[in-house]
Amino acid sequence: MSEATLIDGRAEAEALRARVAADVAELKARHGLVPGLAVVLVGEDPASEVYVRSKGEQSRAAGMHSVTHKLPADTSQADLVNLVRQLNADPSIHGILVQMPLPPGLDEKAVIEAIDPDKDVDGLHVVNAGRLSQGLPSLAPCTPVGCMILLRQTLGDNLSGLRAVVLGRSILVGRPVAQLLLQADCTVTIAHSRTRDLASVCREADILVAAVGRPRMIPGDWIRPGATVIDVGINRVPFDDPAKAAEGRTKLVGDVDFKSARRVAGAITPVPNGVGPMTVACLLANTVTAARRIRGV
Amino acid sequence: MSEATLIDGRAEAEALRARVAADVAELKARHGLVPGLAVVLVGEDPASEVYVRSKGEQSRAAGMHSVTHKLPADTSQADLVNLVRQLNADPSIHGILVQMPLPPGLDEKAVIEAIDPDKDVDGLHVVNAGRLSQGLPSLAPCTPVGCMILLRQTLGDNLSGLRAVVLGRSILVGRPVAQLLLQADCTVTIAHSRTRDLASVCREADILVAAVGRPRMIPGDWIRPGATVIDVGINRVPFDDPAKAAEGRTKLVGDVDFKSARRVAGAITPVPNGVGPMTVACLLANTVTAARRIRGV
Ligand SMILES: NC(=O)c1ccc[n+]([C@@H]2O[C@H](COP(=O)([O-])OP(=O)(O)OC[C@H]3O[C@@H](n4cnc5c(N)ncnc54)[C@H](OP(=O)(O)O)[C@@H]3O)[C@@H](O)[C@H]2O)c1
Ligand SMILES: NC(=O)c1ccc[n+]([C@@H]2O[C@H](COP(=O)([O-])OP(=O)(O)OC[C@H]3O[C@@H](n4cnc5c(N)ncnc54)[C@H](OP(=O)(O)O)[C@@H]3O)[C@@H](O)[C@H]2O)c1
Repeated sequence: MSEATLIDGRAEAEALRARVAADVAELKARHGLVPGLAVVLVGEDPASEVYVRSKGEQSRAAGMHSVTHKLPADTSQADLVNLVRQLNADPSIHGILVQMPLPPGLDEKAVIEAIDPDKDVDGLHVVNAGRLSQGLPSLAPCTPVGCMILLRQTLGDNLSGLRAVVLGRSILVGRPVAQLLLQADCTVTIAHSRTRDLASVCREADILVAAVGRPRMIPGDWIRPGATVIDVGINRVPFDDPAKAAEGRTKLVGDVDFKSARRVAGAITPVPNGVGPMTVACLLANTVTAARRIRGV
Repeated sequence: MSEATLIDGRAEAEALRARVAADVAELKARHGLVPGLAVVLVGEDPASEVYVRSKGEQSRAAGMHSVTHKLPADTSQADLVNLVRQLNADPSIHGILVQMPLPPGLDEKAVIEAIDPDKDVDGLHVVNAGRLSQGLPSLAPCTPVGCMILLRQTLGDNLSGLRAVVLGRSILVGRPVAQLLLQADCTVTIAHSRTRDLASVCREADILVAAVGRPRMIPGDWIRPGATVIDVGINRVPFDDPAKAAEGRTKLVGDVDFKSARRVAGAITPVPNGVGPMTVACLLANTVTAARRIRGV
């Protein structure tokens, strides 16, 4: 039996970063415009520090202006919102990202709402959700944007009329990816924990996007032969090998059972190295989009 | 063959208006709060005048405070926006509705965005679309709210796990009704003009909402036996009777072919007297909701 094409998220992310770098160079040369990204980190969560560092490095590598603000864990809501307001007013900054989660006591929702929607490169502001759902130009969350790029690289620019099934309806992934698929003229179904007969619903999909957070819950026989499978899930599980598992060693798997799925799907993203690497690259792309719109070029 | 239950929109709208009147009486008695609705009409479109009059009458009949502002067709954008701002600031007003369409030269989108989202009882502000799509408390457009009330009256409060198919993806009807169905834990599919094999997609539906604007395009054999059909379409067509048609007489029909559909569906809204009468009643209900939230009671 033939195996699914592997969708190489690392290669696609690298290609996207190269396109972003080319766009940045052109914006500099033609308009004297240097897209600027500000990342705000509150507290000292080690995972967040890694993410923030990588966002700074990647934006600098693309030729962008990059600023990181590190604030102590006991920063007050007012001080954090004040910083956001300063960044809103700063003409050298086109994208603002406040790294989540925030330390306890800080109101994440209120901080996000303080960001100028036109600089909300994480796409979490209610105004961006509204623009997206009204089909207006918006900044969409990065992971969904990454899913769409992988789909278009795999299937071509025209997704019109394809049946897309999205598993999961979070504000961060499921809902916005459904909106983007609808904008691409797919017939879109949104499934979730209350969905009955999930297997049949999944089998309707030409495009299946899984964003559930349950390791390997989607077996190959839920997949329509030839379908394109985008596995957003990132789940940490013990190694299959009992010796390694006994040592407490873990690995990352997706929401899709990769082994059985790749025998049925037409194309599939692995985990890791599928959707994951796209997210930061899409943050850079969103920052370029924001800079263009703010400057009107 | 047994026939579908008819969903009586006139009776449901009357019942809703009675519930609204009871809520208004209670808010007055317990909190001294009189929900207030301001309707703004620009120009002299006769159909709009009829709608605006009926909105005023129905809100007064429910015991609400009702104000209608009639402006000449040559009102400037600035004057219209100024009026909206005054209404935003007026504590006796909890709902603001600017009757669409506006005369040429006025920017509808900008006028809607000038309304305080908390008073946007038409549910068209981008912030309300965003709140709805993020699952936050919002004011949703009236017709979709009406569809949900009819569905709950027919099927009970628990719609969880039912498959809902929405035909149409307008900002006014299709998209928000899909969001409300998702919030009610349905598995939701959105179909539109690019959908392939619409017949099969429709047949998946336990709940079929048609908001397309094409007379009788959905025949009975696209409907799953026993399904609940909500026909939002309002289309004017010539009479079937050639003599009447020759006189140029017309009648209203829905997007669903009622005759064949009622033999298959479990329950169905007629056109007229299905969804139509719910819309203004839901405007009153939205105004009560807005008043409660603004006052925090
Ligand atoms: N690659 C990346 O860069 C990236 C970015 C973000 C997230 N992720 C990963 O993507 C996954 C999802 O993230 P998220 O933030 O969207 O998660 P989330 O907020 O927990 O949402 C999970 C969704 O899955 C649904 N669900 C849960 N159990 C289900 C079941 N048994 N059957 C069907 N649906 C079920 C839930 O339905 P209900 O709404 O009914 O509860 C919910 O809508 C996680 O593994 C996360 O780590 C990856
Ligand atoms: N009862 C009420 O109070 C009330 C209120 C509002 C509207 N309505 C009625 O509801 C209907 C829809 O109104 P609307 O404002 O939503 O209309 P609209 O903005 O014209 O949207 C129509 C939708 O139907 C889709 N569509 C068009 N032709 C189709 C086809 N052949 N197959 C599948 N989908 C098709 C379109 O798809 P694309 O997006 O791909 O073009 C579009 O999304 C109208 O008849 C209107 O009069 C009634």
